[in-house]
Amino acid sequence: MSCDTKLFFTSDACDALEKFLPRLHADKVFLLYPEPLATLLLPNLGIDLASSGIHPIAHAPGEQNKDLGAAAKIWEHLLENGATRKSILINLGGGMTCDLGGFAAACYMRSIPYINIPTTLLAYVDAACGGKTAVNLKGVKNIVGAFQMPAATIISTQFLASLPAAELLSGWAEMLKHALLTDLKTFERYLATDPFTITQEEWLKLIQESVFLKKQITDADPKEIGLRRILNLGHTVGHAIEAISNTSASATPLSHGHAVAIGLITALILSNIKFGFDSGIIHNAANRVKSLYPAFPLHCTEYDTLLELMHHDKKNRDSDSVSFVLLNHTGQPLESVSVSDEEIRNALDITRDLLGL
Amino acid sequence: MSCDTKLFFTSDACDALEKFLPRLHADKVFLLYPEPLATLLLPNLGIDLASSGIHPIAHAPGEQNKDLGAAAKIWEHLLENGATRKSILINLGGGMTCDLGGFAAACYMRSIPYINIPTTLLAYVDAACGGKTAVNLKGVKNIVGAFQMPAATIISTQFLASLPAAELLSGWAEMLKHALLTDLKTFERYLATDPFTITQEEWLKLIQESVFLKKQITDADPKEIGLRRILNLGHTVGHAIEAISNTSASATPLSHGHAVAIGLITALILSNIKFGFDSGIIHNAANRVKSLYPAFPLHCTEYDTLLELMHHDKKNRDSDSVSFVLLNHTGQPLESVSVSDEEIRNALDITRDLLGL
Repeated sequence: MSCDTKLFFTSDACDALEKFLPRLHADKVFLLYPEPLATLLLPNLGIDLASSGIHPIAHAPGEQNKDLGAAAKIWEHLLENGATRKSILINLGGGMTCDLGGFAAACYMRSIPYINIPTTLLAYVDAACGGKTAVNLKGVKNIVGAFQMPAATIISTQFLASLPAAELLSGWAEMLKHALLTDLKTFERYLATDPFTITQEEWLKLIQESVFLKKQITDADPKEIGLRRILNLGHTVGHAIEAISNTSASATPLSHGHAVAIGLITALILSNIKFGFDSGIIHNAANRVKSLYPAFPLHCTEYDTLLELMHHDKKNRDSDSVSFVLLNHTGQPLESVSVSDEEIRNALDITRDLLGL
Repeated sequence: MSCDTKLFFTSDACDALEKFLPRLHADKVFLLYPEPLATLLLPNLGIDLASSGIHPIAHAPGEQNKDLGAAAKIWEHLLENGATRKSILINLGGGMTCDLGGFAAACYMRSIPYINIPTTLLAYVDAACGGKTAVNLKGVKNIVGAFQMPAATIISTQFLASLPAAELLSGWAEMLKHALLTDLKTFERYLATDPFTITQEEWLKLIQESVFLKKQITDADPKEIGLRRILNLGHTVGHAIEAISNTSASATPLSHGHAVAIGLITALILSNIKFGFDSGIIHNAANRVKSLYPAFPLHCTEYDTLLELMHHDKKNRDSDSVSFVLLNHTGQPLESVSVSDEEIRNALDITRDLLGL
């Protein structure tokens, strides 16, 4: 898999697209976007579809629609409109659009090039870079997919202003994770940053830093054979909490990043239990998460369900214990640490305590 | 894409499988095969599924079932039976099974390793090697797929004895094509060979030679950017004739190889018209095809439909003329020659004349 995705950091996605597109010598260009956001995203992108000759493809939004049926609709649209191996698919939207469109591009005629224009903070720093494309099947996330790098990812701050606070916080958790994987100084700088008050220029700088940290890791291990697994820091507990928040009658569904923010605190606590990770840093991190993110009601009666989910996570299928990414120190991850159910229960207790859940 | 498929040429697929499988350290092994052939293929393979711990997965046979729904059933089966990234899928069957199973493996958890055990001559020399996996969509062949090399391909003559004559002839056409792409001496040797009288040992030698010729080409161009297109020799007209044989009320459906055998003669005639390819070789080739393959009723009233199909072939979508692989001389292919409708009509007239169609 080629790693040479061209990255643009800009405040004008249309300008970057107009600069990059001619390099690909595409015979046809298709633009995938989530249907309900058409009236928001398309004017914001600033492309006049009618005059540009770009073929629009709308998809139904939401993780529950990120499935094979949605991919099949894209393939049928490409086919009916004469897309060839020289055609390009542009994915304009959040992580769901990038995942779905990337997968559709990866498999149409055994792969055509695609460009991501992410429109959420989470997609900027996560789904839009790295080449992991996928759809869900039978409720299992990202079980069918392909590793296929985008030809370009255009990250533009023009979409930031219209993001709801919850969306901003969802992406911020992934940025905190990247900072934790870098070094203490970087992590402390992120903890001291208020995502609700910084300027567009400051955002662009932070996003660029975060994307480059991820890119270093994914370039070194594009197919997730080893190193890349460290990007799962906070996700073992995070995915489980996200899942129960989606099924629980008493709680509102959590955003991916909100669940990861909680999961990061649990991972730091486990890092302290197993490797003596600095408890002062954990307290600072927990205080920041507590002040930024709304409280989520997590009860010890839910531990059994959480553990069940962690054991069934695709990275843990063949094991009796649960495998975690933990940290020796900030910036020093350990990619596969076996953790017992009892240690996890302890860490969840402390997480609830520190976050006031 | 890695090109290091391990190739086995044997008369005992089970023995080769038992030698190779341990190298992959698989946690679970799944075996895909076409349902109606279970009673034929599984005893012939010689594996006792119950005692081996291999999970069987049956699929509905036939090109019309090589679709996303069939792939989804395989993914669901893998998921329900706890397949991980360390699991292996073995595809036991003809080209359809190799294409479908290869695609399922390429996309399950963004790819798991797979092994092909082809059971038809056509699959030995075509679908089972080279890493082109795919399913059909809306009647368009192989439009959704992935380039993913098998970890191993086990070619065993044990399945040859039970092949119907038509299946043997279907594979033989691809072997004639490979010989045409090699050199005159090789091609003449293949023309002088009677596929119905040679021994198993002779078969193994010829198949090995044919597979290595293909492998040289696919290793040099795994993603079909250039050189690999020469493997489409005979397929532009072949695909079109195959398609009309499937829809015509007056004709029986042709096997892929039978249609390619006719297409090869048309390609040689066009090579003569455009580049003066030796007409003596064409006559020898046509006589051999005429003596081996049953006559197929091709009428000049079908030329319009054939031309329409050639213009809509996925390799020709963006062009007014039709692009052919032709030969300057035997073993000297030209990968993309523009041919006019009139030249094609002329070549079809001569094809019908030489083959007595």
